[in-house]
This record gives sequence, C-alpha cells and structure tokens, in this order.
Amino acid sequence: MDARELQDYLHAHIPLSAAMQVSVRAVQSDGVMLAAPLAPNINHRETVFGGSASAVAILSAWSLLHTRMLADGVQARLVIQSNAMDYDKPIFGEFTARSSLDEPDQWPRFMRMLARMRRARMRVNAVLESDGAVVGRLTGEFVALA
Amino acid sequence: MDARELQDYLHAHIPLSAAMQVSVRAVQSDGVMLAAPLAPNINHRETVFGGSASAVAILSAWSLLHTRMLADGVQARLVIQSNAMDYDKPIFGEFTARSSLDEPDQWPRFMRMLARMRRARMRVNAVLESDGAVVGRLTGEFVALA
Repeated sequence: MDARELQDYLHAHIPLSAAMQVSVRAVQSDGVMLAAPLAPNINHRETVFGGSASAVAILSAWSLLHTRMLADGVQARLVIQSNAMDYDKPIFGEFTARSSLDEPDQWPRFMRMLARMRRARMRVNAVLESDGAVVGRLTGEFVALA
Repeated sequence: MDARELQDYLHAHIPLSAAMQVSVRAVQSDGVMLAAPLAPNINHRETVFGGSASAVAILSAWSLLHTRMLADGVQARLVIQSNAMDYDKPIFGEFTARSSLDEPDQWPRFMRMLARMRRARMRVNAVLESDGAVVGRLTGEFVALA
C-alpha cells in the first residue's frame, strides 16, 4: 500500500481524516508520516486543537501497523487499547506525525503470536513536528485480532 | 455560559467539533457532558475512530475548566499538557463524554495559584459512555495561564 492508496483508504473509511485534511507523506516499513494543515484543525487560540494533534498521531500509529501487516500478507483487526500523549509546544501551522514501532525487533514475535494465538499486542510511538521542532509525542498500545 | 452558548462557541472556534457534530448536553460546575454521533466519527470497522473518541473527551475536559473559570469571572489561556486515554470497549453508536475535576476540592487552590502565580495546573477526567456502558476514560493535565 503506497502513500496515495493509504490516503484514499483513510479518507474513504475514516471521514474525520478527510475533515482534518490529513495527507500521507510516506509509507515505509519502519514508519508512516502523515501531515495536516492548521485551518481545519485550529482552536480558539489559533493553534492546533489538541484533539486534532492526538487524532493525527493515532492515525499515523495505526497506519504503520495496518500497512506493515498488509505487506506481510496478514489481514487482522487492529484495536487501540490505550494511548498517552504529551503536548510539548503549541502548533502554529501545518504539522506532521511520524510513527515508529516502540520495539522494532519484536515484529517477528508479534507476527508469530498473531498466527498462533490469533491475538498480539504492539506499542507504537508517534512524533509530531511543526516548523522544524518536535511539538508532541504519542505512545499507543494496539491489539491485533486475527 | 449555558449548553447552547458553549456549543456555538465550540463550533465557531474549533471547527473539528462541528465536523464531529459534537453537541453539548449539559454544563454544570462539576462537569460538562458532550455527545457525538457515529456517522462523522466512524472508522473502517464501523465503530468510533479512537481519535474521535479522545478528541471529544479532551473537548469535554477543556470545556469544564473553561466554563468554570468564566463562571468565576476569570479569563485565562488553557493549554493541554498531556493526556492518557483508555479505550475500554468498541463504540457502536452515539457516545457521550462527561468531564469532572480529578480533585474537586483543589479548585480554590487552583484559582489562588492562578491569581498569584499567573499559572496553575489542574487534572481533569472524562468518562465516555455509549449504550449505557462505560467505553473509555481520559485523564488530561491542563495549565491555565492568566
């Protein structure tokens, strides 16, 4: 699944991603980068609403697990169980969210567990950047159900 | 600020709240209840997208601090610093988010700190419910800047 396909999928199936005008910048096996502009995500202080920032971060984390499982030929249901988000700085314009696995070397174990137990757990991080600076960080716990 | 005024304010200043079709059910000194329908917040599994669930929870938490400070005659900038969210169950339809102060008896101290130090911190919880069950829980840390 390339960037264009992922973007079309998100906009078609998660309408909030279209409302936030999320675009997919890159889809790689070690991370997915999304971007969103200020206007649809603005708050009353003319910075990015925290709920938008965390939603885009969650989307980038979910997208990494989704595309990487597809690349490995696995269709599984992905459920977010929890997340923690730090808002380091106000975001004054367009921002990006780049996801990565918290423990990349655990991927083979995750896939084995999913095949054997029909259920496996993975932690994904996302870093938000805007205007060259880190502005937020998310950690999310996901469960895949085969 | 009553429910109608808060809803108008949110839709006018935080466009994502309008995109999520957030409505304000109740504004009380000990909690704000918001609601949102499934359709604009749906995901690829036809349940509520986690990013929508956490965004509505954050809005309810922010709204409680905002309306309560206004009721006390204080105008301050409110910034979310961090939040943690648990997604207890999938959400299959309309859902509500009801906020409350984590330590309600600390409100006078919060107002004194804000007056004296121009800066004060408060933790707010929000409980998400759908179809009579608790489906998620958020804790958010906010800073008010006078």
